[in-house]
Amino acid sequence: MPAKTDAAAEFYPDEPTGPILVKSNTKNVQEKESLGEIMDTKSVMFVCDYKKSIGNYLADVDGNVYLDVLQQIASIALGYNNPILKQVASSPDMVDALINRPASTRLPSNFYARAIKNILKGSPKDQDKVWICLSGSDANDNALKAAFMHYKSKQRGYDAAFTAEEMESVMSAKAPGNPDLAVLSFKGGFHGRTIGSISLTAARAYHKVDLPAFNWPKGEMPNLKYPLDKYEKENAEEEARALEKVEEIFKTWRCPIAAVVIEPILSEGGDVHASAKFYQGLRDITLKYGSLLIFDEVQTGFGATGKLWAHEHFNLTTPPDMVTFSKKAQAAGFFYHDAQMMPKDAARMHNTWCGDPARVLIAEGIVNTILEYGLVEKTKEVGEYLFPKLEKLAEKYPELMLNLRGKDRGTFIAWDLPDGDWRIKFFAAARSVGLNIGGGYLRTARLRPTLTFNKSHADVAVELLDKTFEILSKE
Amino acid sequence: MPAKTDAAAEFYPDEPTGPILVKSNTKNVQEKESLGEIMDTKSVMFVCDYKKSIGNYLADVDGNVYLDVLQQIASIALGYNNPILKQVASSPDMVDALINRPASTRLPSNFYARAIKNILKGSPKDQDKVWICLSGSDANDNALKAAFMHYKSKQRGYDAAFTAEEMESVMSAKAPGNPDLAVLSFKGGFHGRTIGSISLTAARAYHKVDLPAFNWPKGEMPNLKYPLDKYEKENAEEEARALEKVEEIFKTWRCPIAAVVIEPILSEGGDVHASAKFYQGLRDITLKYGSLLIFDEVQTGFGATGKLWAHEHFNLTTPPDMVTFSKKAQAAGFFYHDAQMMPKDAARMHNTWCGDPARVLIAEGIVNTILEYGLVEKTKEVGEYLFPKLEKLAEKYPELMLNLRGKDRGTFIAWDLPDGDWRIKFFAAARSVGLNIGGGYLRTARLRPTLTFNKSHADVAVELLDKTFEILSKE
Repeated sequence: MPAKTDAAAEFYPDEPTGPILVKSNTKNVQEKESLGEIMDTKSVMFVCDYKKSIGNYLADVDGNVYLDVLQQIASIALGYNNPILKQVASSPDMVDALINRPASTRLPSNFYARAIKNILKGSPKDQDKVWICLSGSDANDNALKAAFMHYKSKQRGYDAAFTAEEMESVMSAKAPGNPDLAVLSFKGGFHGRTIGSISLTAARAYHKVDLPAFNWPKGEMPNLKYPLDKYEKENAEEEARALEKVEEIFKTWRCPIAAVVIEPILSEGGDVHASAKFYQGLRDITLKYGSLLIFDEVQTGFGATGKLWAHEHFNLTTPPDMVTFSKKAQAAGFFYHDAQMMPKDAARMHNTWCGDPARVLIAEGIVNTILEYGLVEKTKEVGEYLFPKLEKLAEKYPELMLNLRGKDRGTFIAWDLPDGDWRIKFFAAARSVGLNIGGGYLRTARLRPTLTFNKSHADVAVELLDKTFEILSKE
Repeated sequence: MPAKTDAAAEFYPDEPTGPILVKSNTKNVQEKESLGEIMDTKSVMFVCDYKKSIGNYLADVDGNVYLDVLQQIASIALGYNNPILKQVASSPDMVDALINRPASTRLPSNFYARAIKNILKGSPKDQDKVWICLSGSDANDNALKAAFMHYKSKQRGYDAAFTAEEMESVMSAKAPGNPDLAVLSFKGGFHGRTIGSISLTAARAYHKVDLPAFNWPKGEMPNLKYPLDKYEKENAEEEARALEKVEEIFKTWRCPIAAVVIEPILSEGGDVHASAKFYQGLRDITLKYGSLLIFDEVQTGFGATGKLWAHEHFNLTTPPDMVTFSKKAQAAGFFYHDAQMMPKDAARMHNTWCGDPARVLIAEGIVNTILEYGLVEKTKEVGEYLFPKLEKLAEKYPELMLNLRGKDRGTFIAWDLPDGDWRIKFFAAARSVGLNIGGGYLRTARLRPTLTFNKSHADVAVELLDKTFEILSKE
């Protein structure tokens, strides 16, 4: 669909043209203290006035207004106080969903089919069904369950019944009822923080230290050298090595590997990219060994990479078996295409709520807007406009801005700072000039703006980054 | 607080006085088919028109209206289309929460402290802090994580740093970073369906067959005989036996037991009750062995048992360490009182969203209403009115309605059918007379009405149950 006129201008006529810094922190301190009486606030950065935030700009309670390229850890698709979502939020269906929350897989609402069909207009190619969950962690946790059930049902036949031994052994957590099955994920991967999904996650040690974990294998992502066009041969060899290692794990792991879970760009892990060829190789291995391929698109999904789904950059010959999503959708779940990905018996994949219809309605509004306003194509264009400017910045600050990556990936762009300490200094300096920006593993800074982030926002961002590096270069 | 005039009469002046059966199913069939194109509908009973549902009565899309004593698996506190919640759902804060969803432990909203402080007005005695999650499963999964982190932080000292060995071993899912720690739960217990929480769950085999599981110990609930006043001595001996078995597990389990998780009434497990003495014994064992006590009040919490929290019936000498909640709150999380239940470092207990402020606002409205209208006391009164009527029904149908339980537990009442097949017949017959009722493990039927379910509703329910058993007795 062709991009309409600028979406931000249409949605946010009163959006500021740059940050507004009142340099006060009084209310933030007070309100954080008040929160601290009743909840853990060690992670709180500042307290926000979302009613005064607008589009790509985030307001705190003191009146500081930041250009926000982090957007609630990549989870705001359209910007703050979007007028279309405001309408959705005030609709009769929304009031219904909020005050009459159903057990949606038991007693669904009469608007549920419509809303989900609209969400599916934005699903990955070939994925025409969805299982709704509550968060990215929950989506991955549920995808794991579906994968395990699928693996065992393939073994015994989809319509076959459980054996008495299976049913009995479950109660003491033993095989065959609770089988030893594994899922392969990757070092640097982040797949959430439920006790199940965190067994996949291997981005940072502090996420999971002290927790019992399933001993599941971790592949190694290829360690690519940048800029990519300079290191084609080395990178191809590195990817072949990483794939060999994955196949070696399949051959030697102590138990069957029911699925491979991977992000199309390892996001919390520091924006680790690999080529289409690598991902095709991985798909081939899963097919060879009868394992499922699950793309975790919780962070990459819904357009930020310049395609609706990041794995569509790879043009795989066979579609993935499941694609998990959350964040920008504001709802969560996984898309799939094989009806047998759900077990034959009712109430096995099940929860009281299985998602939240209020968030399903918001997701419907977001997907409709993304498609109607051509926001994926626009994000692609903005990325093409922005990336060369960042390349210039990287040339200007060669000691500070390293390994710029995300070319041809829309605004899903990242770079490294010299180390983790520099990264912390970088965030503080950015905030001091009015830019709210976040990072990934160890020394990465990343852009995760909305899909209404346009060329003017890009210009402001580049100007603020220039100021930020200027401050750092004087340290 | 004294109970005001009848809440249902005030909230729902147009509530029907009994079920309305149009005996048509056409639209239900159509809409279920439509849903089936895009999601798994094996568990769907019927499709609802929630906008036409009112108070304690649930409308389907064909126009059938049922007296609903299941209430979305015990998760509707006040009834359908509650006018106070309608106001909350249309408030400026709600629109804000829906369209500007924050990463609430990073960049909380300026209304968050107020809303949570209001929710805490309904927290269990001595529990003055809360960690917000998304569902009951998620609350238990998070409580487990907090318990494991707490256990290890007690060992190394709250302020001590991780060792290099801990941080490295985590990446290959090995000790000491990922320690072998267990949590004790009970056979018949249900604690959710994330891969973590399902390792606690031991209610029905089909919940967890085919899934890898942590091998954690399961205690046995005392198997009490009814009516309780007839079997005092036998039941006391049975409870002593169950406690001894728990202590035996603590003495012999292969690894430390960081916590005990238990429901005050095992709900999905078939409403398994035990005495205050049993629970005090359990608390004593946890204190003796340095283990935490976590009450899972996802189903029992917020008033249905005639106290705000079911475990308050036990008058424990030491409060539990955590109390998980969800369902009737529409939000979820766990209450706690020791600030060190949260790890010393930021972002360890963490997720992008950590709950949903839209649901936090609904929870605020629900808790305010429960307290203002004295709905816990009213539910206690209704239970006292209802229970003797059910006793009479059990006398009338002694072959069909067995082991009536939940005396002095408000409307949290259950009984057994002769077996699982009879239970299925019972549900179908109940629905045919206009009663929507659900069940627990194997052969249990249970009442889980709203907190506005009053004496008139109780009369209608008894009449419909009488009709239902009448139908069954002719089979």
